Amino acid sequence: MIIMSKNKNSEEIYRKACEVLTGGVSRNIVYRKPFPHYADIASGCHITDIDGTERIDFANNMAALIHGHAHPAIIKAVTEQLQKGTAYTLASEIEVAFARLLCKRVKGFERIRFVNSGTEAVMTMIKASRAYTGRPKIAKAEGTYHGTYDFAEVSQTSKPSNWGDINNPNSVPLVYGTPTGVLDNVVVFPFNDIERTIAILDKHAGQIACVMIDPVPHRVGLIPGTNEFIEALYSWTRKNGALLVFDEVVTFRVNYGGAQENYTVSPDITALGKIIGGGFPVGAVAGRSDIMKVLDPREANLKFPHSGTFSANPVTMTAGYAAMDLFDRDAVLKLNTLTNKAVCQIREVIKLADVPVSVTGAGSMFRLHLTPTPPTTYREAYQSEETISVVNELLNFLFFNEKILMVNTFSCMFSTVLTQKEVDKLSEAMLRAFNALKPKIEKLHE
Amino acid sequence: MIIMSKNKNSEEIYRKACEVLTGGVSRNIVYRKPFPHYADIASGCHITDIDGTERIDFANNMAALIHGHAHPAIIKAVTEQLQKGTAYTLASEIEVAFARLLCKRVKGFERIRFVNSGTEAVMTMIKASRAYTGRPKIAKAEGTYHGTYDFAEVSQTSKPSNWGDINNPNSVPLVYGTPTGVLDNVVVFPFNDIERTIAILDKHAGQIACVMIDPVPHRVGLIPGTNEFIEALYSWTRKNGALLVFDEVVTFRVNYGGAQENYTVSPDITALGKIIGGGFPVGAVAGRSDIMKVLDPREANLKFPHSGTFSANPVTMTAGYAAMDLFDRDAVLKLNTLTNKAVCQIREVIKLADVPVSVTGAGSMFRLHLTPTPPTTYREAYQSEETISVVNELLNFLFFNEKILMVNTFSCMFSTVLTQKEVDKLSEAMLRAFNALKPKIEKLHE
Repeated sequence: MIIMSKNKNSEEIYRKACEVLTGGVSRNIVYRKPFPHYADIASGCHITDIDGTERIDFANNMAALIHGHAHPAIIKAVTEQLQKGTAYTLASEIEVAFARLLCKRVKGFERIRFVNSGTEAVMTMIKASRAYTGRPKIAKAEGTYHGTYDFAEVSQTSKPSNWGDINNPNSVPLVYGTPTGVLDNVVVFPFNDIERTIAILDKHAGQIACVMIDPVPHRVGLIPGTNEFIEALYSWTRKNGALLVFDEVVTFRVNYGGAQENYTVSPDITALGKIIGGGFPVGAVAGRSDIMKVLDPREANLKFPHSGTFSANPVTMTAGYAAMDLFDRDAVLKLNTLTNKAVCQIREVIKLADVPVSVTGAGSMFRLHLTPTPPTTYREAYQSEETISVVNELLNFLFFNEKILMVNTFSCMFSTVLTQKEVDKLSEAMLRAFNALKPKIEKLHE
Repeated sequence: MIIMSKNKNSEEIYRKACEVLTGGVSRNIVYRKPFPHYADIASGCHITDIDGTERIDFANNMAALIHGHAHPAIIKAVTEQLQKGTAYTLASEIEVAFARLLCKRVKGFERIRFVNSGTEAVMTMIKASRAYTGRPKIAKAEGTYHGTYDFAEVSQTSKPSNWGDINNPNSVPLVYGTPTGVLDNVVVFPFNDIERTIAILDKHAGQIACVMIDPVPHRVGLIPGTNEFIEALYSWTRKNGALLVFDEVVTFRVNYGGAQENYTVSPDITALGKIIGGGFPVGAVAGRSDIMKVLDPREANLKFPHSGTFSANPVTMTAGYAAMDLFDRDAVLKLNTLTNKAVCQIREVIKLADVPVSVTGAGSMFRLHLTPTPPTTYREAYQSEETISVVNELLNFLFFNEKILMVNTFSCMFSTVLTQKEVDKLSEAMLRAFNALKPKIEKLHE
């Protein structure tokens, strides 16, 4: 049923790749059985692999490309910068201009520091929280992804056999050999569950440097945090001398001022990444100036010495400036409206195909679940191996038969260069996929 | 004596920067009292700031630029790649080609994984060591810099008031609020001191995942590790089930196959960064395939799940390939010969000026010390505030009067585009600097 053909070039390159890259890949996310596909050229919302197959890209490098591929304004700006150098042992004007652009955008961004990835951003945010409060622990939600810093990774993939009592979730290591010194300093709570979360936090009050939240956590099910939940965390942190910090590496695309614009309270610090790099490696930490001061090299007693060879390099700053300048309020509204249209059409398709499928999401992102009603917690969103297997069949159907690239969690991360035409193609493709796999989807609920 | 003029533009931008960037900078290394300078354009070995002053660049973005600025071959390759996209949710051919190039270069590089910075490379290397051995602790040398992962930062800036007994150096936190769970898992030993190091390691045998070494540690004094020391660590790790891992983020430029080519034993894993990115953000971990297997997504029991949005992005891979392809055995030899020539000339200048100054280094890097004989340990290389103040005066003299940019530790990191002409200018400038500051240098030894 799934038509795999014309992939000789990718197969051949992967054979060579396995001789030099562990597992043949440098990012697990691009791995695909029996071999990954290799990109040749990408432009706008299209990506063509080295076997000549063009697909519509709804993944946008894991949500990182807000204007799709090779946007002319970004390419032009970067091409000019290349002639002037890509990295210096001096500062550059563009980092100041870009910092100003971002600070103007979000009320709570008083000071910024740039780094090289979302992982570095979250690590810097956690270390700044500890340096400001003098406390060792962080609190995070079960199942959330926050990059590869080991403290941030705790309980990212908790499963029924190890997640423990919901009233007191275990701190589960992601990587084998994680020191207990890491696990002991991470408090895990259930997302969107105010009562249990506050009870858990109370047990560690006085030791918690920050409560970290991804406001629309992808791996928890791409379910937005409720305003009541965020307010409860805000209020708890005010009472207990802790910071409320947001990981908006993924979710900054959700609204003009990030997902935080959708809440009545603001985080103390925010980690950024993905779209703010305009397609180049980036990360940033932004927030209250009194907290950010821990990083200020002019301080006599500098609490958090920090540097980075490629941080704020002028290429990333130039691309990021161009991308965020284009992503103004009108562009955000237009993109979110189109995404909402797509979700509506897909809900229609779900009805038409009569399959037990639901949709969650926010802003320009949505995720499909093979359940009749959307999950509301990580434990509800957790997928059995059987479910993952059917999700993979659906993704393969879309990838091979329909020439559609989605995120491997059955999610779409839209870009501004998509139009109604691609949305129609997506919903038509989705209908064929649901029809083809309906028996298998239904079997999951028997 | 120091002529500061024509810096109005930098001063003005810094004023604006302070409103949005903490401390006005995104990298502490570019901060300079009373304000940092802003780059306008850089080409080859020259960098011009926004006030129109051109300088010779001997810093090369903290050793990261092996071919200086805007090398035509790198710019051409990157400009072409830009048109094809900068990042995909698919793999790309160039990551495989680049991995092959690096594996061919170094005997011990059986498998590679790319990341986004030296910080990420060291963190990945440490986590892989723990995952492979199942042990929690790492051992590192006192005073060494290995990026901003907190485990790697321990004792980076140990000082007389907190470094403790040399037979058992304290694990000193760099950042305020570092959890004891981090400090307890880092064993600190004195660089190049076989007897004490082995005695310290023995106390933690069975718990140590890896012994991490920068073979020519910049902050320890840019003194190469002796072959006996590296052999002793190798032998200890063989006997005690631990890994020997090298941080070659800075030192990979030292020889064709990195500084490791200068030793009779090889590390199990190596962290890379800086020059391999061709001027773009990069990091990598390379080493034994059986260890790297912990990262292999095809493994049923994957010990170290790991990904990264910008890892192995085709722009960095393209620039890195072009840069390392150009940096062949001939280029390495030519560069190291020129650097050695510079060191010889500077030693002559030291004699001429009759100042108590010494030089250390390896390959294309050297560092000056305001002591008549070079330091041999971190504690010997440790500088008092008075010494740092004179170093800064020398650097300011060179920067403002002589139009020479060096690394703030009084070091040079050469690039292949430097010639004898710039070396002559450097030594002449150095002579004037020594003559001007001779009384202050001598006063340090009264």
